[in-house]
Amino acid sequence: MRYRRLGERGREIPVACTDDGTFDLRPLTEDLDGAFLTRTEPALVHHEIGRGGLPVLSGAERLRVGAPVARPGKVVCIGLNYRDHARETGTQPPAEPVVFMKDPTTVVGPYDTVLIPRGSTKTDWEVELGVVIGAQARYLDDPDHAASCVGGYVISHDVSERAFQLERGGQWDKGKSCETFNPLGPELVTPEEVPDVQALEVGLAVNGVVRQKSSTAEMLFGVHHLVWYLSQFMVLNPGDLINTGTPAGVGLGTPGEPYLRPGDEVELWIDGLGRARQRFEAAP
Amino acid sequence: MRYRRLGERGREIPVACTDDGTFDLRPLTEDLDGAFLTRTEPALVHHEIGRGGLPVLSGAERLRVGAPVARPGKVVCIGLNYRDHARETGTQPPAEPVVFMKDPTTVVGPYDTVLIPRGSTKTDWEVELGVVIGAQARYLDDPDHAASCVGGYVISHDVSERAFQLERGGQWDKGKSCETFNPLGPELVTPEEVPDVQALEVGLAVNGVVRQKSSTAEMLFGVHHLVWYLSQFMVLNPGDLINTGTPAGVGLGTPGEPYLRPGDEVELWIDGLGRARQRFEAAP
Repeated sequence: MRYRRLGERGREIPVACTDDGTFDLRPLTEDLDGAFLTRTEPALVHHEIGRGGLPVLSGAERLRVGAPVARPGKVVCIGLNYRDHARETGTQPPAEPVVFMKDPTTVVGPYDTVLIPRGSTKTDWEVELGVVIGAQARYLDDPDHAASCVGGYVISHDVSERAFQLERGGQWDKGKSCETFNPLGPELVTPEEVPDVQALEVGLAVNGVVRQKSSTAEMLFGVHHLVWYLSQFMVLNPGDLINTGTPAGVGLGTPGEPYLRPGDEVELWIDGLGRARQRFEAAP
Repeated sequence: MRYRRLGERGREIPVACTDDGTFDLRPLTEDLDGAFLTRTEPALVHHEIGRGGLPVLSGAERLRVGAPVARPGKVVCIGLNYRDHARETGTQPPAEPVVFMKDPTTVVGPYDTVLIPRGSTKTDWEVELGVVIGAQARYLDDPDHAASCVGGYVISHDVSERAFQLERGGQWDKGKSCETFNPLGPELVTPEEVPDVQALEVGLAVNGVVRQKSSTAEMLFGVHHLVWYLSQFMVLNPGDLINTGTPAGVGLGTPGEPYLRPGDEVELWIDGLGRARQRFEAAP
């Protein structure tokens, strides 16, 4: 199943998208959130569409596309999780996942404007496979138990300010939580529609120039390993978002460090999850 | 004004506590959250109590004390922010605040059991002054503008697993977000009841032995500086919690590193904010 949230920010309508149209999910749920993902099998939504229980949303194509999950309880990020990115940054691949966090209110829609923070000189891009939790994960026995905790996959943009992250004292979070720094979407795709999550092309272009092009096969720690691993350190709750790391080709690793400037356009794609595109502007 | 939330977890009743009793706030608000703090001056609550608009909550003393603010949107933490802690460890005081984050779902009540994570050998204590945001802070012009953004003060326990934090790869957040790792309360005290927030004794004892005893006068960066500073990197929203750093005397800095074990009892106090006490048990 493919879920979207359409409409003005804070008033998005949850919908299911199939070849037959865009179906309003409000007879089933107020919003696309953790509670919905926990209680609703994709098969139920298919069944409801089949029996005519969900009305077609007319004019859907004219509505803004919001992030496809209501504000996550937390956003957990994995650093240096692609072999090619570790090579590019000149660092040793980590022995176990590097974990940091992002303010959940940074999540915006996949076509929303991203604000370059005041005082920023090094706003950088990072395309990532986002994993939305669908069932609580707490001290999972092994990575095989993680599959049933995944609610869906989504394109996530882990926008980063490298000076704030690396040159302003000790920890990374300071350069990760700026306003609008986590565009998400366009759609949340449930696992049964993703045949092999570790074989997806992941790409990003800036002003039409491809900067990142890799595959989730390059991940050091795969999705199920990450969910299992994180569940040993924290409780993952339905609706939480995991950004699983970015491949090679970020601005920081590109000759000349061509960081983002007002007016730049960034396009992101992942096999089977659609495309996103954001324009960058200076924060007012 | 002094606010508490009383009752079973997830079903707490918001109350205001005065010398005259414990008053049920539900005629004014469903919960003690950011929206309430933004729209409600303490003077209004006093007025409502005075005119008999808020009923006394009978049996209040028999109810569990919950965290005095509903789940924060984010928990932002400041590292290495006390001079005595810097002296004790022989480290250079940071040139600007060190910032990291904690999973907001770690917030529990001030007398709730804290779970020592599976596999933990270094669960440590950290008493901190917690600042709850009462009005949005975004690119504040200077620290003087921060005062109006503070909704209240609270005792916060930034429980930390030092092996997870320092020995398991790159960033601190992994040792900060374990289940139940942020006891908060007992009460949220609004700023007009705190004459000088930079002159409060801050203390903590483990099994009756005083381990931390300092003053917020020892902070490198004061509360208003921190709110102003953070507002340059992220948007602080009403209901967000800032843990402002811990003074000297944590387990990590104590000879023999006497980390917490199942059955240990930790007591915390801050001038004017009351006392909290937690029993530590092994995570089931």
